[in-house]
Amino acid sequence: MSRRVEVIEVGPRDGLQNEKEPLSTEFKKDLILGLEQCGFSEVEVTSMVHPKWVPQLADAAQLLQELSKTPSSAKRTVLVPNLKGLERAVESGVQRVAVFIAASETFSQKNTNRSIEKSLADTQEVVERALDLGLTVRGYLSTVFHCPFEGKVDPETAATLTRKLLQFGCDQVSLGDTIGAAVPEDVDEVLQQLPNVPTEQLALHLHDTYGTALANVTRGLDRGIRTFDSSIGGAGGCPYAPGATGNLATEDLLYLLERGGWEHGIDGDKVLEMARFLEAGLGRPCTSHLMAVNRS
Amino acid sequence: MSRRVEVIEVGPRDGLQNEKEPLSTEFKKDLILGLEQCGFSEVEVTSMVHPKWVPQLADAAQLLQELSKTPSSAKRTVLVPNLKGLERAVESGVQRVAVFIAASETFSQKNTNRSIEKSLADTQEVVERALDLGLTVRGYLSTVFHCPFEGKVDPETAATLTRKLLQFGCDQVSLGDTIGAAVPEDVDEVLQQLPNVPTEQLALHLHDTYGTALANVTRGLDRGIRTFDSSIGGAGGCPYAPGATGNLATEDLLYLLERGGWEHGIDGDKVLEMARFLEAGLGRPCTSHLMAVNRS
Repeated sequence: MSRRVEVIEVGPRDGLQNEKEPLSTEFKKDLILGLEQCGFSEVEVTSMVHPKWVPQLADAAQLLQELSKTPSSAKRTVLVPNLKGLERAVESGVQRVAVFIAASETFSQKNTNRSIEKSLADTQEVVERALDLGLTVRGYLSTVFHCPFEGKVDPETAATLTRKLLQFGCDQVSLGDTIGAAVPEDVDEVLQQLPNVPTEQLALHLHDTYGTALANVTRGLDRGIRTFDSSIGGAGGCPYAPGATGNLATEDLLYLLERGGWEHGIDGDKVLEMARFLEAGLGRPCTSHLMAVNRS
Repeated sequence: MSRRVEVIEVGPRDGLQNEKEPLSTEFKKDLILGLEQCGFSEVEVTSMVHPKWVPQLADAAQLLQELSKTPSSAKRTVLVPNLKGLERAVESGVQRVAVFIAASETFSQKNTNRSIEKSLADTQEVVERALDLGLTVRGYLSTVFHCPFEGKVDPETAATLTRKLLQFGCDQVSLGDTIGAAVPEDVDEVLQQLPNVPTEQLALHLHDTYGTALANVTRGLDRGIRTFDSSIGGAGGCPYAPGATGNLATEDLLYLLERGGWEHGIDGDKVLEMARFLEAGLGRPCTSHLMAVNRS
């Protein structure tokens, strides 16, 4: 199996979306351009979610315009919740979007105010329209392993929804441990339900709430998964997921990969520089292990 | 392979030994008795190291006397650095001792002021004497994977020293990632050098400096290891190991095991109660993930 791993940086969107204090568009632009210089092949830069729900990312169009002045070889992915969001993304010249559904009914209702079934139908429309327009689409499935409201999620349900997203035309589905509660056995259970899906069509999106994120990465690697989402500095955490702490930090993931001899093509020193840049912008220390070690 | 895992609680010794503020013997006794009630089969209770080096544990004899008033089915292990320490342990009625050597020459010199070779000779004496006296002996090998001064440690050296400790008569050798720098590939490398050693004679003693502790536990479980050391609240950290943060927290290890369906026989609620008891005693929050979640 390949030793090449792709790390998708989701900090600018997933990491920042819940920050209460408004961050300037310029700060976000500099963060993204700096991250692109680290060597990530894909950076999720913002979201076209209604500002009422995610005020921090209300400047998405302006940010994209600023970014367009500096071309990048990295894919700039934008999260879109619906057709309207897709339209706005297209107007901003976006070429890759991400869509999302949840594997837990209660979470789907609380996070997006619609059932999984409705969510699926809406998402199919968005994906098909995006493909028609020549875009590529990444899919997120959240609460794949555990739901903060329902507890353990049925692996078969998670697998069925993953296949649906791929059938709609997503080129990859990122399996989200939204509350960071999964253990390697959970990862196994879900992946075992997806035996015929090429592993390059799957990614893991992990949180480190219980300290299990890198254990789950390890199990994913064992099972052939070669794409992992992470967030600079460990920024982020889902507001609808009680007890959810930050995303798996990019620098912690890179530590595991680097020491383990996995090829990733990312400049670790530059990543730490960007984590320090993020700290300065947020005005507080990042929560990653690597940054804590570097401070000690 | 068995789904039964043994967790050895090392907090009272490894966790407390570097606490600067003196803790009362009564507090230590209550901590240990509480931990024994959690269901651990073995608790490392103190150390017979010279008080000059570890002032916090200078009350070892008194503590053991206090403990002797409350019999326990848990093994009460005492760390001994030399024959003198063994004598003192025996005087206190100890039935199980732990000995330790390092796999890195520089660490051995800095931690115990003797070479690995001298350390081995001294330790052989201690183990043989302990066995003669009817005690059982656990062995620690520290800096198995990485040394804070030398970097990566040769897996063959680590394996050779592990075998020596077993040959001396230790019934188990605990492989210590003293600075918490190991990744699963490191665990693999060392275990692959020990193909003929029954896995019940091996344990992993991990630190979570870089967030890899549970990934390393997972790899150990994959390879048949069924004994793991951990420290209540994540207390501890080696003073001679720059950048070393706390031990793998018992409650975080239990989370992984419990969710993963591993049998461990330990009362998780009681463990959290003891972590809170430790917090009260230390006057600061524990560093474990589980305690952070419970506070949020």
